Amino acid sequence: MRRKVCIVVTARPSYARIKTVLQAVRDHPDLQLQLVIAASALLDRYGSAIDVIRADGFEPDAQVYMILEGENLTTMAKSTGLGLLELATVFDNLRPDIVVSVADRFETLATAVAASYMNIPTVHVQGGEITGSIDEKVRHAVTKLADAHFVCTQRAGENVIRMGEREDRVFLTGCPSIDIAAEVARSPELTIDPLESFGGTGPDLDLSDGYLVVLQHPVTTEHREAMLQVEETLHATRDSGLPVLWFWPNVDAGSDGTSKGIRVFREQEDLQNMHFFRNMPPEDFLRLLIGGSGIIGNSSVAIRECSYLGVPAVNIGSRQGGRERGRNVLDVEHDRDAILEAALAQAAARRHDCDPLYGDGSAGTRIADLLATIDIGIEKRLTY
Amino acid sequence: MRRKVCIVVTARPSYARIKTVLQAVRDHPDLQLQLVIAASALLDRYGSAIDVIRADGFEPDAQVYMILEGENLTTMAKSTGLGLLELATVFDNLRPDIVVSVADRFETLATAVAASYMNIPTVHVQGGEITGSIDEKVRHAVTKLADAHFVCTQRAGENVIRMGEREDRVFLTGCPSIDIAAEVARSPELTIDPLESFGGTGPDLDLSDGYLVVLQHPVTTEHREAMLQVEETLHATRDSGLPVLWFWPNVDAGSDGTSKGIRVFREQEDLQNMHFFRNMPPEDFLRLLIGGSGIIGNSSVAIRECSYLGVPAVNIGSRQGGRERGRNVLDVEHDRDAILEAALAQAAARRHDCDPLYGDGSAGTRIADLLATIDIGIEKRLTY
Amino acid sequence: MRRKVCIVVTARPSYARIKTVLQAVRDHPDLQLQLVIAASALLDRYGSAIDVIRADGFEPDAQVYMILEGENLTTMAKSTGLGLLELATVFDNLRPDIVVSVADRFETLATAVAASYMNIPTVHVQGGEITGSIDEKVRHAVTKLADAHFVCTQRAGENVIRMGEREDRVFLTGCPSIDIAAEVARSPELTIDPLESFGGTGPDLDLSDGYLVVLQHPVTTEHREAMLQVEETLHATRDSGLPVLWFWPNVDAGSDGTSKGIRVFREQEDLQNMHFFRNMPPEDFLRLLIGGSGIIGNSSVAIRECSYLGVPAVNIGSRQGGRERGRNVLDVEHDRDAILEAALAQAAARRHDCDPLYGDGSAGTRIADLLATIDIGIEKRLTY
Amino acid sequence: MRRKVCIVVTARPSYARIKTVLQAVRDHPDLQLQLVIAASALLDRYGSAIDVIRADGFEPDAQVYMILEGENLTTMAKSTGLGLLELATVFDNLRPDIVVSVADRFETLATAVAASYMNIPTVHVQGGEITGSIDEKVRHAVTKLADAHFVCTQRAGENVIRMGEREDRVFLTGCPSIDIAAEVARSPELTIDPLESFGGTGPDLDLSDGYLVVLQHPVTTEHREAMLQVEETLHATRDSGLPVLWFWPNVDAGSDGTSKGIRVFREQEDLQNMHFFRNMPPEDFLRLLIGGSGIIGNSSVAIRECSYLGVPAVNIGSRQGGRERGRNVLDVEHDRDAILEAALAQAAARRHDCDPLYGDGSAGTRIADLLATIDIGIEKRLTY
Repeated sequence: MRRKVCIVVTARPSYARIKTVLQAVRDHPDLQLQLVIAASALLDRYGSAIDVIRADGFEPDAQVYMILEGENLTTMAKSTGLGLLELATVFDNLRPDIVVSVADRFETLATAVAASYMNIPTVHVQGGEITGSIDEKVRHAVTKLADAHFVCTQRAGENVIRMGEREDRVFLTGCPSIDIAAEVARSPELTIDPLESFGGTGPDLDLSDGYLVVLQHPVTTEHREAMLQVEETLHATRDSGLPVLWFWPNVDAGSDGTSKGIRVFREQEDLQNMHFFRNMPPEDFLRLLIGGSGIIGNSSVAIRECSYLGVPAVNIGSRQGGRERGRNVLDVEHDRDAILEAALAQAAARRHDCDPLYGDGSAGTRIADLLATIDIGIEKRLTY
Repeated sequence: MRRKVCIVVTARPSYARIKTVLQAVRDHPDLQLQLVIAASALLDRYGSAIDVIRADGFEPDAQVYMILEGENLTTMAKSTGLGLLELATVFDNLRPDIVVSVADRFETLATAVAASYMNIPTVHVQGGEITGSIDEKVRHAVTKLADAHFVCTQRAGENVIRMGEREDRVFLTGCPSIDIAAEVARSPELTIDPLESFGGTGPDLDLSDGYLVVLQHPVTTEHREAMLQVEETLHATRDSGLPVLWFWPNVDAGSDGTSKGIRVFREQEDLQNMHFFRNMPPEDFLRLLIGGSGIIGNSSVAIRECSYLGVPAVNIGSRQGGRERGRNVLDVEHDRDAILEAALAQAAARRHDCDPLYGDGSAGTRIADLLATIDIGIEKRLTY
Repeated sequence: MRRKVCIVVTARPSYARIKTVLQAVRDHPDLQLQLVIAASALLDRYGSAIDVIRADGFEPDAQVYMILEGENLTTMAKSTGLGLLELATVFDNLRPDIVVSVADRFETLATAVAASYMNIPTVHVQGGEITGSIDEKVRHAVTKLADAHFVCTQRAGENVIRMGEREDRVFLTGCPSIDIAAEVARSPELTIDPLESFGGTGPDLDLSDGYLVVLQHPVTTEHREAMLQVEETLHATRDSGLPVLWFWPNVDAGSDGTSKGIRVFREQEDLQNMHFFRNMPPEDFLRLLIGGSGIIGNSSVAIRECSYLGVPAVNIGSRQGGRERGRNVLDVEHDRDAILEAALAQAAARRHDCDPLYGDGSAGTRIADLLATIDIGIEKRLTY
Repeated sequence: MRRKVCIVVTARPSYARIKTVLQAVRDHPDLQLQLVIAASALLDRYGSAIDVIRADGFEPDAQVYMILEGENLTTMAKSTGLGLLELATVFDNLRPDIVVSVADRFETLATAVAASYMNIPTVHVQGGEITGSIDEKVRHAVTKLADAHFVCTQRAGENVIRMGEREDRVFLTGCPSIDIAAEVARSPELTIDPLESFGGTGPDLDLSDGYLVVLQHPVTTEHREAMLQVEETLHATRDSGLPVLWFWPNVDAGSDGTSKGIRVFREQEDLQNMHFFRNMPPEDFLRLLIGGSGIIGNSSVAIRECSYLGVPAVNIGSRQGGRERGRNVLDVEHDRDAILEAALAQAAARRHDCDPLYGDGSAGTRIADLLATIDIGIEKRLTY
């Protein structure tokens, strides 16, 4: 009998982080994929990941609306509670043998709590890393609930073990997002015109002499400052003179602050060099990065995929603080001058070498093989 | 302005663990107590802690029904989700400055998630200890969500720090349950007849020549065996010939197994020496222990309060596994012969000396003073 | 393409009311049955209808725990809210063409709200009747949400139309519970010994010279009096001298009052002639009624099935007030003398003739045929 | 002891419908107001009614986030379930003597279910009217749950009684929204420049020679057509040549369709005569209507307040179908030519006389007096 592996995808960026695992589990002879799509992955205004997932050939076994309106910290907590409430029903009906909880978004804690409370062996992908904000608490809380850990870096694995997890339950698989990066790196040419294919708003831009890509998310524990912070990035990239391709942030408490900052700036300023996108398939997004002059903002893509791809990155503020990084990253504060200077320096720099810090491109199959074979119980204790 | 400290009490045993903190916070000039009563603390069949709490002079600021019927693992997860959903609303309306999450019951994770997600500084009392079952996962997950830690033992504090928490946020306060034990130890005489005052079911028993007290909870991750396990204890204590005062278990997935085991045994056997109680005020319960021949079962009272009080204890099975213990404890498996032998040995033994392993009786005031003065932010990272 | 008909069963008694519809829908060539089991139908202490349903060959498409512990009016409201929340997810995943809401239990409103809000054509079975308590409000609220009405009596149909429903959407089908009664009436012999087959508690009773069957539910809007009320019935039936087969009530706010009344009475009195049952398959229960001296209490079975079967009934108090009844029913207040007198009178009376007031035994197939063929939109207005 | 009257406000438009009742209850010597703010009334993107309510001097006793993201029928049902779940907790903590449920928005059913299930006497304001869409079902379901009815028109009262409600529990009070209209009518001059005071987006418009006000909501049971429907109104009003003041719709399943329709139109067309507003205090909005050339759309304001104020109205489509109307209303389909023709005809027409069809301006005090004095039980039956 094949092991039923239930994977809960709650957001567009999480899908990129787990896609090759979905494929490898689906294709594995000893595994049966149970796919649950929930939270912002179902929502139009966060890019309808569900449509992309279906287009990639996956049909969800269940879908669960769970995000409350309000985009504040109260609704973030309530959404997680609602998710926990409903995912328990979903697991009760699907009866998986293993549940996979992905990374560290606030709502992913619901997956880990439901599964661990229901005595379903729980696997955490991407634990042990260090960052800022609520993600840090979520990530390590999930580690303490999970029964096995598929980590992305050597040091992340060490961290998980130091937190008291059993060494024989920690596996260095690399990050599934690097699998996509590795595949893209094998055919790096962007075959479409992004402005034509993905619309967005703003002027037509000539991308032939380089361009910046911007992706900046609100930082939940500082969400009142989100509007001020994004203004710095808006000024800096506008003043760079380079064409700027700006991607809207995904759902989080405070996204309202960031989004409002962008909206206000757009209305007040005449933005000749900036084009705004809602969303794009991860592969095209990566090709866009490979072909460009660098990525600006606080997305983990700049740290993870871009280290593998050698794309120069300007990382702003505390959101990725503590996360291991390669040589492709320049860190700056939320300061327009510093951002501008770093962006221009990166745009002038050469591409960096491939750095397999976060994986070598085989995480998906490695994880599926482990899911099919590892012996994971649900009982554990601090190893101290 | 006084700091608003919100404490969420979710069960009868948790109340005993936090009562002196409630008192000390209420009486502290720089603190304002916000009391939330939730979960099984509101329910008749788990001893209506709410009535005891009111009788002790506390009026709740909010009460929240959140336990789903079913007493299985699915409803345990759902109850936690419901608690998270509603506690977020409660915190949003009460706007506390600090939230206190008590110990490691499954539903206490809801308190910690709601508070930490809402950027309310979150304090965990009784972290860092090691036990079996789902409590182990809950406890350490709460540690990773909390911003400060009031631990009961030296080793627990070391464990919290090893898990990556900041040393300056970990405080050895001792366990508030020991405060009650210390007070009881100063006037240890039971002034009431328990059978008369607390009713219960079963024959009148002569307690003048010693008696056993039994308190056995189901172990959630083995809940199908709960019925078999309790049978061993039932046989052993019945066969001891000593009068037995048996207390029903509190709410947990699987309590049905334990309770059913008790019910079936009572119907099948003629129990001349066993009397069954639903509940008793903690002080009377401790005096009952002091005056008796020992405690049998898997309650943490046997490990914590009884180490301070020097009451002999027979600890059965895995539930308290890993928890530090004093010399008053004999550990046995779920085996009627082993339980009987240990019970008789303990009944024949002398009282043990007071062991301040879990506290010296001043935890309540110490914690209130810390709550009034410590500087706790909500931002943290693994200290590795 | 077959119409997908989703039927939500939330309690043991509701199953008896809809069982022949489940069968007829499952067997209908143009229909596909989607079965959802929820609420107390999943719970041990309300007789685990789920086990009976599975034994009858139905496999649920989804099951939803939704009853909160507490058995008070607050938890009754919350359970309904939780049901609504989760049934919406279930319908979103199952995508039924028609949803069937059964009768008038409090939680059935969740089915009707979820379906009607989601623009799924909603059918109500057993509307238009008049009774006491919260059921009255629930029943008519469901009528106003439903798009078609399958009523049990002529007068019930008239009532639905008078409330402003379209005449062409009201169908007199009879009650599916009568289908079972009709089938039982064709082979009325009880082939098992109930005490042997269904256990229960209490003395062995000799049933050969007649016996009373008692089924009394708490009346939610008077729930504090439930304990007093049941005492009257307990006294009356004990004093009847006849063997008494007493069935525990099903879940409702206040069941605690009724159940506690029974428990206290059992402990205080020496009950030589009373045996208590948790549950029994509906067919056996009806055969038990046919073979006995009458039914006592406030169950609708006494009004509905027993009118068809001609079983004498003593109906106590307000719960069935307003409901149409046949000649088999004597109505009395919650008064031990009146109950005793009526019980003895009924026990001495002859069996009544079959009265097809609530149906002729073909409701199931009639309803399935209608579900397969009727044209129901979701738009409606008061017809005045 | 004053009666505690709990009023739940769930949306900006509902506040206008109940504001004078809030005032009259707060000021009544025998009543104590308990105010709960919930649902879209808390949300920025629906106009933050909470801010207006606070500015009017009301402080909420509780606030409850309950709207799920998604704006589809599934989330509409789930939001209602969540509201029911949490309002039960709120009522359990506030312990009101009477709960008031306002009008017929989908989430208001949660108020009525929670209150009636908890045996709290429940009053419905604005029952008995006839319209299209899900509101029709909600409104009459609330009637069947409520214990007393404060209706706006003579015919609405007759309808409630025909539905089987007791005549002595139905009171013709008029609509509280007319109270505001009556007060505004006594000082009809708009003392502010709306474009200056309320911002919005779009060109400055000269309003001195007349202007149209547009307010069009999505119709839930036809929500896919919402985008097409609003396009008709957009074309018609654009082509009118008159200055157009357009107000965004409030929350509803499908609002996305309407809003998207507006957004797309704004991006594609050069709108010289249209200005878009998010929100405005009701009094200013009414003065804007009094000073203008007519109201276009499907808002109930056009039917209710505007009949009293004599403002010409073009009512589009089915949303207000069945509702009683005065001579000020012209009804048209979703057809740009018909809308344009009617709008121009109304703009050319004279103001109509005041028609007290929906009230005479004293509903607030009348309702407060009734709340203080009526004897309402919670037990009722169909009166047939």
